[in-house]
Amino acid sequence: MIDKINKFKDLQKKLNAYRYFFWLMNWDQETEMPKMGLDFQLSNYQILMEEAYKLETDKEYTDLLEELYLNKDTLDDDLKVEIKHLYKSYQIIKVVPKNEYLEYDMLIQGASPIWANAKKNNDFALWSETLEKIVQFQRKLTKYLETDDKKGYDILLDFYEDDMTVEEYDEFFDQLRTQLVPFVLEKTAKKRKINRKFSNKIFDINKQKELSDYLLDVLHFDKNRGLLKTSVHPFTSGLASVDTRITTAYHENDLLSNIFSVVHETGHAIYEQQNDKRFDGTNLHGGASMGIHESQSRLYENMIARSYEFISTHFQKIAELFPKQFKNVSVDEFYRFVNKTERSLIRIEADELTYPLHIMVRYELEKGLISGKIKVKDLPKKWNQLMYRYLKIKPKTDSEGVLQDIHWAGGSFGYFPTYALGTAYAAQIYHKMDQDINIKKQIKENRIDNINEWLKEHIHKYGASKTPKEIMLIATNEPFFASYYVNYLKDKYKDL
Amino acid sequence: MIDKINKFKDLQKKLNAYRYFFWLMNWDQETEMPKMGLDFQLSNYQILMEEAYKLETDKEYTDLLEELYLNKDTLDDDLKVEIKHLYKSYQIIKVVPKNEYLEYDMLIQGASPIWANAKKNNDFALWSETLEKIVQFQRKLTKYLETDDKKGYDILLDFYEDDMTVEEYDEFFDQLRTQLVPFVLEKTAKKRKINRKFSNKIFDINKQKELSDYLLDVLHFDKNRGLLKTSVHPFTSGLASVDTRITTAYHENDLLSNIFSVVHETGHAIYEQQNDKRFDGTNLHGGASMGIHESQSRLYENMIARSYEFISTHFQKIAELFPKQFKNVSVDEFYRFVNKTERSLIRIEADELTYPLHIMVRYELEKGLISGKIKVKDLPKKWNQLMYRYLKIKPKTDSEGVLQDIHWAGGSFGYFPTYALGTAYAAQIYHKMDQDINIKKQIKENRIDNINEWLKEHIHKYGASKTPKEIMLIATNEPFFASYYVNYLKDKYKDL
Repeated sequence: MIDKINKFKDLQKKLNAYRYFFWLMNWDQETEMPKMGLDFQLSNYQILMEEAYKLETDKEYTDLLEELYLNKDTLDDDLKVEIKHLYKSYQIIKVVPKNEYLEYDMLIQGASPIWANAKKNNDFALWSETLEKIVQFQRKLTKYLETDDKKGYDILLDFYEDDMTVEEYDEFFDQLRTQLVPFVLEKTAKKRKINRKFSNKIFDINKQKELSDYLLDVLHFDKNRGLLKTSVHPFTSGLASVDTRITTAYHENDLLSNIFSVVHETGHAIYEQQNDKRFDGTNLHGGASMGIHESQSRLYENMIARSYEFISTHFQKIAELFPKQFKNVSVDEFYRFVNKTERSLIRIEADELTYPLHIMVRYELEKGLISGKIKVKDLPKKWNQLMYRYLKIKPKTDSEGVLQDIHWAGGSFGYFPTYALGTAYAAQIYHKMDQDINIKKQIKENRIDNINEWLKEHIHKYGASKTPKEIMLIATNEPFFASYYVNYLKDKYKDL
Repeated sequence: MIDKINKFKDLQKKLNAYRYFFWLMNWDQETEMPKMGLDFQLSNYQILMEEAYKLETDKEYTDLLEELYLNKDTLDDDLKVEIKHLYKSYQIIKVVPKNEYLEYDMLIQGASPIWANAKKNNDFALWSETLEKIVQFQRKLTKYLETDDKKGYDILLDFYEDDMTVEEYDEFFDQLRTQLVPFVLEKTAKKRKINRKFSNKIFDINKQKELSDYLLDVLHFDKNRGLLKTSVHPFTSGLASVDTRITTAYHENDLLSNIFSVVHETGHAIYEQQNDKRFDGTNLHGGASMGIHESQSRLYENMIARSYEFISTHFQKIAELFPKQFKNVSVDEFYRFVNKTERSLIRIEADELTYPLHIMVRYELEKGLISGKIKVKDLPKKWNQLMYRYLKIKPKTDSEGVLQDIHWAGGSFGYFPTYALGTAYAAQIYHKMDQDINIKKQIKENRIDNINEWLKEHIHKYGASKTPKEIMLIATNEPFFASYYVNYLKDKYKDL
């Protein structure tokens, strides 16, 4: 058995090395690759992707995987969880015919520029054909993978959040629908007065970059083990605690967008930088699930950086960088501006209170697309209907509607609901952490490192070696309850 | 035979795909990788390097290569040259034992940070052990590869410049020693008055970046097929006409360093962007040789961008970006400043006239290291002696002496002499092109595109499908003569 384990580990290391290069290639493509270099990059990617696929489907490797899976209870803890993860992904390779798998992979590799172009030109028709192919593959995939217990969208949901089902998500979103949506609509019923002190101002990009750098230091992002760059859509990317990369996007007319993108992605990054180093490069590096990962980014973004304590502590630095723009602006005004809430169209710009409603729109659309009840061609119309149902507003263009998100271009169906779930996890985690270390005191004393340390010990160090349900138990001593989230939001926004 | 050719081409494509990833990894390492990510990157590199090595030494591949080499005269022109190139590199793999080859490769992958650290700390001892290993491998390599016709340093010289030998280089450098060195020493005998108008000035990095961007456009660098970034040491990097990347380094107290780095690397890049697209990703992409490549970067840097016509055409833009620094500076003053010549320590900052003397120092040291007449431990002393012999100056520290260049850390022995040779090629090419299109007129009318076009037709489009000797004949209708270079320098500098 020892020999088999060692042989398996060797093969897995080789696969992980390919994964490293695919990661690097993707990072390059998203952050700097010259436009005309795409086809050349893809042609090289395709060749090595086939090499990796060959290795992954080689009988020697799959026999070992099957055998180790059968004997998983005899393995050490790390290997046992790793085998479980790998066996899950292996199911896809096992059931999807090779040509379909590789064809889909190439489709996804080339999809994001097509989506970006459609969004830029506000033309859903430029995108619908590719999206249709992606959806059809996802539907086919659920057919290939279905069992007596698990069918359809449940299968996709489980990829992003272990053991989560339509039933559980429906219950979660029902709670939000009954307890939160009326509150949100009431709070956002009156169109807010626009604070003229912040509109129509220009914030120099180089000064914004200086502020990003300051925020990285405040949050104790480790620059020797990571970097910040720009891309169209901010994201976090990495396969090891020693190399965790994040991006942001700068907009001259919007200071907050960059501030909270940087904090959000830094939240993701600190999670990965604080993973136990022994997980580097393996599939135990990363987060317990997308939801747990998002809980961390949201915790830093909303609960730390949008708190009065954070805003008041760092107000002086911001005002120094933009003295003209902050002339006659008080801390209280800036705090209220940072937490302003309104019905808006763009998810990534949505405020903390209305955000889950954006996710409910996407969740219902994905459920319909995968079940077949919604057709790709009807998406723009359906999108607009749902936006009206929950937020009582309608997009004027598809660019600010159905074309706004990159996720479907990456083949991610079942991912969106984890955003809302993750934010809800965050509220419960915050509640517990606050009992231990008085979070607002830490923020006021500019000791985010103490918050990082608590999260490291209770969540981060475990990487992907625990399930989300295990992590919630470890971190909060109880299972997940949506009520923490509803209470947190009502409490924060009742007087704002 | 057709089947064998196709099989060979398939295998070669796979090897080229690995090469693409090694290229990307190296680009990442040099331009942005977080410091602590190095070991993780190297561990992944090592695994895929072994995969590529396996493929390259696989009997199926090497048998095909040997057979195609034997039958090279029956192949089409592209394939014939490609096979010749590959056969030449294959000799290394053929004769060097696998463990030595892979060990050396890992040594080189990790060497550049060690060198950088030694340079930063001005401590040759931190570097000498690694350098010693590299030199020993190079010496061993020449033993492995030696034939009746070719021995020692000749073998290394030939890697960078087809068919060049110690004998030919000695003759070339002798001409410079007798005809140029006395002229240079005479021109630089008097310590020049420092022009106070340019010293002690600060040039904002963001403004310098704006100027870089302007220069890329002036030179018609294609931004859709390339990009400019920063690194410690400027370089050009790419495997295809559709993706050619360059770097520069910014120094707040030095405007010229960035200007001429950008132009220099753009010269390299335009060569590669103008390669025939059919060579993309193959070993026929690139330049005919290091010398021919350098001839292009030097032509753009020295002969175009340091010309009176270029300086006067773009002076206004520069003065607009730095109005305070250029107050009361005339075009003529700036032109003389740009072409100031003096005995200096750092090769990459050396002026056009003294530059070849820096190369003579390195040529003699490499010759001695490879023959065994010079020991690594004696390098700092020898370096300083030769600097005094040719330039009559001595470095005060090893950082500005023997530690200044990255090349040996990359295992490049035989590369340096191509810099001087390339500059000499450039003079001859310039002479011929000027007869066809009146270069100064093109520069004055801001039509660098016409210069690019001439170079594309006479040199660039051929990529690496011709030898340097063939390229000189195609471009200038005669073999190489050093006299063009000597005459060019004497003519330009006699009145400056």
